[in-house]
Amino acid sequence: MNIPRSSHPRIVIIGGGFGGISLAKKLGKREVQVVLLDKNNYHTFQPLLYQVSTGGLEPDSIAYPLRKVLIGYDNFFFRLAEVTEILPEKKTLHTTIGELTYDYLVIATGSKTNFFGNTELQEHAMAMKSIPQSLNLRSLILENFEQALLTDDYHEREALMNFVIVGGGPTGVELAGALAEIKKGILPKDYPDLDTRRAQINLVQGGDRLLDAMSEQASKKAADFLEKLGVQVWKNVRVTGYDGKTVTTQNDLSFNTATLVWAAGVMGATIKGLEAKKLIAAGNRLNVNEFNQVDGHPEIFAIGDIACMQNREYPMGHPMMAQPAIQQGRNVGENLIRLLANKPLKPFIYRDKGSMATVGRNKAVCDLKQIRFQGVFAWFVWMFVHLFFLIGFRNRVVVFVNWVYNYIRFDREARLIIRPYKRDYDQFKN
Amino acid sequence: MNIPRSSHPRIVIIGGGFGGISLAKKLGKREVQVVLLDKNNYHTFQPLLYQVSTGGLEPDSIAYPLRKVLIGYDNFFFRLAEVTEILPEKKTLHTTIGELTYDYLVIATGSKTNFFGNTELQEHAMAMKSIPQSLNLRSLILENFEQALLTDDYHEREALMNFVIVGGGPTGVELAGALAEIKKGILPKDYPDLDTRRAQINLVQGGDRLLDAMSEQASKKAADFLEKLGVQVWKNVRVTGYDGKTVTTQNDLSFNTATLVWAAGVMGATIKGLEAKKLIAAGNRLNVNEFNQVDGHPEIFAIGDIACMQNREYPMGHPMMAQPAIQQGRNVGENLIRLLANKPLKPFIYRDKGSMATVGRNKAVCDLKQIRFQGVFAWFVWMFVHLFFLIGFRNRVVVFVNWVYNYIRFDREARLIIRPYKRDYDQFKN
Repeated sequence: MNIPRSSHPRIVIIGGGFGGISLAKKLGKREVQVVLLDKNNYHTFQPLLYQVSTGGLEPDSIAYPLRKVLIGYDNFFFRLAEVTEILPEKKTLHTTIGELTYDYLVIATGSKTNFFGNTELQEHAMAMKSIPQSLNLRSLILENFEQALLTDDYHEREALMNFVIVGGGPTGVELAGALAEIKKGILPKDYPDLDTRRAQINLVQGGDRLLDAMSEQASKKAADFLEKLGVQVWKNVRVTGYDGKTVTTQNDLSFNTATLVWAAGVMGATIKGLEAKKLIAAGNRLNVNEFNQVDGHPEIFAIGDIACMQNREYPMGHPMMAQPAIQQGRNVGENLIRLLANKPLKPFIYRDKGSMATVGRNKAVCDLKQIRFQGVFAWFVWMFVHLFFLIGFRNRVVVFVNWVYNYIRFDREARLIIRPYKRDYDQFKN
Repeated sequence: MNIPRSSHPRIVIIGGGFGGISLAKKLGKREVQVVLLDKNNYHTFQPLLYQVSTGGLEPDSIAYPLRKVLIGYDNFFFRLAEVTEILPEKKTLHTTIGELTYDYLVIATGSKTNFFGNTELQEHAMAMKSIPQSLNLRSLILENFEQALLTDDYHEREALMNFVIVGGGPTGVELAGALAEIKKGILPKDYPDLDTRRAQINLVQGGDRLLDAMSEQASKKAADFLEKLGVQVWKNVRVTGYDGKTVTTQNDLSFNTATLVWAAGVMGATIKGLEAKKLIAAGNRLNVNEFNQVDGHPEIFAIGDIACMQNREYPMGHPMMAQPAIQQGRNVGENLIRLLANKPLKPFIYRDKGSMATVGRNKAVCDLKQIRFQGVFAWFVWMFVHLFFLIGFRNRVVVFVNWVYNYIRFDREARLIIRPYKRDYDQFKN
């Protein structure tokens, strides 16, 4: 792939997510050659994907060109490529654009949607892990309402206006809240000739509380907020299947819906070549030591969602969120420089800055280290933190402008079907 | 399509472009039932599509939800549908979502790219008349440079970095200028490992001057600006074919390129049922009288690009631009109300507000009624006018923010390949 070998050791980073970018920045202007590979030419700010799906933000505002991250660094190379196989013995990668050798490899491929082997679900459910997927969901939501206008069939119309979100983590909670606000603020105006009061938002959680990685207090408040917004929250319900029409669960409960959003699990996005049993922990993640080195391969590191560093405090590995990825990226960056200087490595210590989720307008929950709070102030903190971590000054300003507009006008103007999602509606006909 | 017949006459508008929207607004709160049909659920601000293609603006910023245009009007209906046939005798439309009858029909379907029957061109050239097409072009431009990094073949790399734009109207001029600025300001930083000085932008015009609908002075200055930016301008060259690799012309000149953008002609987007010879004027437009009524069908109106109203001042009909469409929409709106009140109709009189085109940073040309000017001031006027006519307050603010950012930082941050355009690059291999 036309990358010259320099006299400096070559570090290859697979993935330009939170981990990959923070690592790349650490290595800037050091005596190393860095090659960043990603299947997209942009970084995706995943925490705001649900706002793209619900027309609150434009897709480009939460993406950032990866080449721009590397501007000004010498001896940095970006290639738009997907890695198909790792050959650790040969220190070589097979990619969609050819072979590449490395001296050090950092796997930062993140995670992908986990359907737990249910192929029927995988085929019919909508996922929301990438910008194209989020845009597909946006199109489908809007197309459903356009279609609902056209039918005389009661059951079809109910199915079109019925949204089932599976998974009570932050993604599910935030999407459900946003849909509820659309139902309340936008649908009656946009569809005066449709009885949009009949639109339903169902949030289905397998466990007995929402946001189960947060405090009990946050869970309870999030459920309260959602119920106030008119979301039906179903706890202790496990979805077993979806044929594109009917959602089945482990008990009698079922849903007739044209839209199932699956936010009930993620798994590490592993690459062929490192999938040997002993390397893989729960959730298809790569077992790493305290320096993020993959077991048995001191020259291969894994960071972020794909890495599972088990210790006393985090027996199942760190949470699959932005913060551990960012911090591990920085630590591995420092350790690589230490390694090349023959200095001892520093173990990774996670500094938990807390977590938060937003339900809607003036409604969020925050668990910080010292303090837990919910409501209007939490919502402002949530917005501030997300603006702060969003990459790129322009993105921050554009997102801020959209939020101010949406807040003042109770609106979401990006309700556009730019690329239709071709759902087969005929199956709902009698 | 579930639209109840009311006691008021039904006016059906086909197309939510500049003409359709200005008409719909005129009919708001009047004693009529209005049905707006469009194949998209949004209005497209076409004059800024080239900025979406070149990563300067986000696609959603220049689109506006059509349902939102109609909010607050009673007895207004929007349906997402394409009209497949007009049956004037039955006052009925066939559409992709069923039949619809009308009392009055306004055709505002605009124009589409005209390849003048050249199917080879149609197959391989990129058009830029819609948001998806503009995003495809954006993806292709960026993918070409990614691909150029990978090849060792000199001719392939030249073809990948060679852009040929056919058509010296505002679209061609504006796109060529924007690409030239990207070449100068962004490529060297984004692709330090590629000799981007070899990138070429060729603008091919069939006639002997650019912007031939504007003054000689504007044409000359636009050509000067483009040449200063490094664009190769080819006059009196007619493109005869493009097989995806080589552009042929009527003389010896040919171009080896992976990207041909066709901006050399538009034609009315007519609908089956009204295509009888006598109704159609040059450019596939519908002949209309001074009230925009289609010949022989007093209950059918046509406005904007699709309408050809020939008179002494405009023997070939009005220019196919936003202004005539907006003004005709307003006039037809007033005339429909007059018609229903049995008042005489008012003939359409076009008020030419002038025209303008931008070439790049601080470089634009304006022909206003009293005055012609070029350069920095023209550029500010161009920006102000485009912000003013852009629909939606949020869109204006977001576009303004992007322009300020791009101006200060010499940047275009939306250089994102969200949906790859699957170009077959293998044909360039030897």
